[in-house]
Amino acid sequence: MKLFSYWRSSSSWRVRIALAFKSLPYEYIAVHLTENGGAQHRPEYRVYNPLAEVPSLAFECKGQPAVLTQSVAILEFLEEMHPEPALLPKDVFLRAKTRQMMHVISSGIQPMQNLVVLERVEQLGGEKVAWVRHWIHRGLAVLEDEAKLFGGKCMVQDSVTMADVCLVPQLATARRFGVDFSAYPTLVQIDSYLAALPAFIAAAAEAQPDAPKP
Amino acid sequence: MKLFSYWRSSSSWRVRIALAFKSLPYEYIAVHLTENGGAQHRPEYRVYNPLAEVPSLAFECKGQPAVLTQSVAILEFLEEMHPEPALLPKDVFLRAKTRQMMHVISSGIQPMQNLVVLERVEQLGGEKVAWVRHWIHRGLAVLEDEAKLFGGKCMVQDSVTMADVCLVPQLATARRFGVDFSAYPTLVQIDSYLAALPAFIAAAAEAQPDAPKP
Repeated sequence: MKLFSYWRSSSSWRVRIALAFKSLPYEYIAVHLTENGGAQHRPEYRVYNPLAEVPSLAFECKGQPAVLTQSVAILEFLEEMHPEPALLPKDVFLRAKTRQMMHVISSGIQPMQNLVVLERVEQLGGEKVAWVRHWIHRGLAVLEDEAKLFGGKCMVQDSVTMADVCLVPQLATARRFGVDFSAYPTLVQIDSYLAALPAFIAAAAEAQPDAPKP
Repeated sequence: MKLFSYWRSSSSWRVRIALAFKSLPYEYIAVHLTENGGAQHRPEYRVYNPLAEVPSLAFECKGQPAVLTQSVAILEFLEEMHPEPALLPKDVFLRAKTRQMMHVISSGIQPMQNLVVLERVEQLGGEKVAWVRHWIHRGLAVLEDEAKLFGGKCMVQDSVTMADVCLVPQLATARRFGVDFSAYPTLVQIDSYLAALPAFIAAAAEAQPDAPKP
């Protein structure tokens, strides 16, 4: 498998965690989102991803080249192809709660911090830091309450799920935008626990080949 | 099951289609999103949905009251609880493509037309119709190409999937915002096919109890 990724992209990061968690080897192909106008806009990349976004996962399927985009669809695909170790609980209601948390991030927060959206907000004269912080706070407040109800070491009880896979990159983006975490002690505690796990260490932004050297 | 819904909400509409497609009975509870400042903001509703959005699905789980929010999480839950008739293909790659199309809509388009986002765009001095049309065109262009590759009568081959469940309400919103469909002949053809199916007729905005009387 080839993963088209950008070190700091939270959607790419989700897929990197899942791949590492399931011990699936892949070739890392960096797509620099900001240098020279953005490599994601080049025609040779848009063959893989017509929306000009990362991640894209390229692989062989029945002897033919195949590509998937949309990180949540990729997470579900990896789970179906390689069910163990699982990223969804066994209990059907907890599976649904896991996906609910994932979608609060993937459709409630992340789209608002997407590069193309921020460019548009700035064109309207909006201040992008205030815009991003607003949507992050709105989502994290709900996730904090859900984590208090359903969480343990992780967002749903004590095992890593897709909700955790989405949480860690989202909190990293929040940190980058200077979000105050004082209202989210449960999320911060879960994030600390996850950050020490091997898959999360391997997938971290700073550990990627395209991350700037310190 | 009780479905908290608003007739015109595309996310509520997705769940209505899935419930009708699987012949699952439910009680319809209208949440008027604009009247009197919006019923979704009332404390008695936010118990069900702290993000103050529709839909929410309330039901009993192991004898306890349970609630799910986030339409895509609800679709996946209904599919796991009631696998037949299926809303995902049997083939694992086509399942992934279905979810990819769904997420192009659910995280690439729909968040941008969400009421709370449009309010914020207007506060910035943005013109909401132009904003919405931009994101809809961006997503539909990609879906048109995917439908040409993978579609038949439906978005993925000839059977109804979650991609269709998301397409129909999205195109209805697009129509409401005056989007020109001339670049999307494949989507328009699929939409016409779907519109005549019983589940889509039952779930249509205008057929809901809270739709304005003609």
